[in-house]
Amino acid sequence: MSEPTARRRGRPPRTESAGTRDRILAAAREEFSERGYEKTSVRGIAKAAGVDSALVHHYFGTKEQVFEAAVEVAFAPALNAPNTLAEGPLDGVGERLTRFVFGVWENPTTRTPLLAILRSAVNNETAAAVFRRLVAAQLLRRIAAQLDLPDAELRAELAAAQVVGTAMMRYVIKLEPLASVDLELIIARVAPVVQGHLTRP
Amino acid sequence: MSEPTARRRGRPPRTESAGTRDRILAAAREEFSERGYEKTSVRGIAKAAGVDSALVHHYFGTKEQVFEAAVEVAFAPALNAPNTLAEGPLDGVGERLTRFVFGVWENPTTRTPLLAILRSAVNNETAAAVFRRLVAAQLLRRIAAQLDLPDAELRAELAAAQVVGTAMMRYVIKLEPLASVDLELIIARVAPVVQGHLTRP
Repeated sequence: MSEPTARRRGRPPRTESAGTRDRILAAAREEFSERGYEKTSVRGIAKAAGVDSALVHHYFGTKEQVFEAAVEVAFAPALNAPNTLAEGPLDGVGERLTRFVFGVWENPTTRTPLLAILRSAVNNETAAAVFRRLVAAQLLRRIAAQLDLPDAELRAELAAAQVVGTAMMRYVIKLEPLASVDLELIIARVAPVVQGHLTRP
Repeated sequence: MSEPTARRRGRPPRTESAGTRDRILAAAREEFSERGYEKTSVRGIAKAAGVDSALVHHYFGTKEQVFEAAVEVAFAPALNAPNTLAEGPLDGVGERLTRFVFGVWENPTTRTPLLAILRSAVNNETAAAVFRRLVAAQLLRRIAAQLDLPDAELRAELAAAQVVGTAMMRYVIKLEPLASVDLELIIARVAPVVQGHLTRP
């Protein structure tokens, strides 16, 4: 958790900085989750973290960059997942991916930042750009790379559309019966679709 | 267009009221599209329509009710569609529904209010409730009613999740290549999924 990203600006001595950075990141995650991208300010993040705005800029740069860092932390498990998820037999990849994503959504701790990202991306072009960079470039493209098919990226996106659409209906819009049915029932319906998008000739 | 909904409060003489109601509704659609549900006020809608706030309340009631009326107009073609869409051979229903929904999304005039509804529903519980009432009760349940299967509503929702998720990735988040590929390619991939959700044993 203390070193979630590689890109970093020049920074103060190690011991003090790790705690401060984490505190700013936690405050940023909280602020973006509660208010969404547009209504969150660097000043508000700094205040919540108990530091000066200048320190937030020092560690992360612009508001967009703070957002990206906060999203990156939230996505960290997902960003590392494709490597292991796409390993193993290809005919089980649909179920592995579906189980993994819904596992993240079912957990309230990981659901909150995901919700914040989705809400911000739907409402703000800058946040959508961050979503595109992280999700498209890092997550979907790494899944696609393992498929070895000419239209692998489109396949990964259509699979993601089914999963994200289902998660939105279940956890955000809360359409019934989808919001209340047992998760296993959803996985039984969605996993074959994900599998089909990814591997059907 | 002049009589989009059945529920109506006591209203002034017909000739004058039709024009005023339509003007208020058009202003409401515009305001909700531009600002989203939370930032839109009845006062702002009234100002944009060139009328007094009291008149907006008189015709529609609360802000939630103005929103519902505006959404209902935007959804009018879709709300009437299930009757005809679900007629005809059942093995073509996936493609008919998919073509219909993407037709609405591809048209900038009908896309704007849809975007506004989606954005508002993702961000605000009151707007989500309107979305649930209109989309779930009126649209999906009417499709489900024609399927004659015990889990028809869940099937309709999972089909909708693939379509709405794909529309979100293509038109809102603008993930590439999904945002730029030919619509026919998307329909070729999505229609069998919709068909499968709706009718596969």
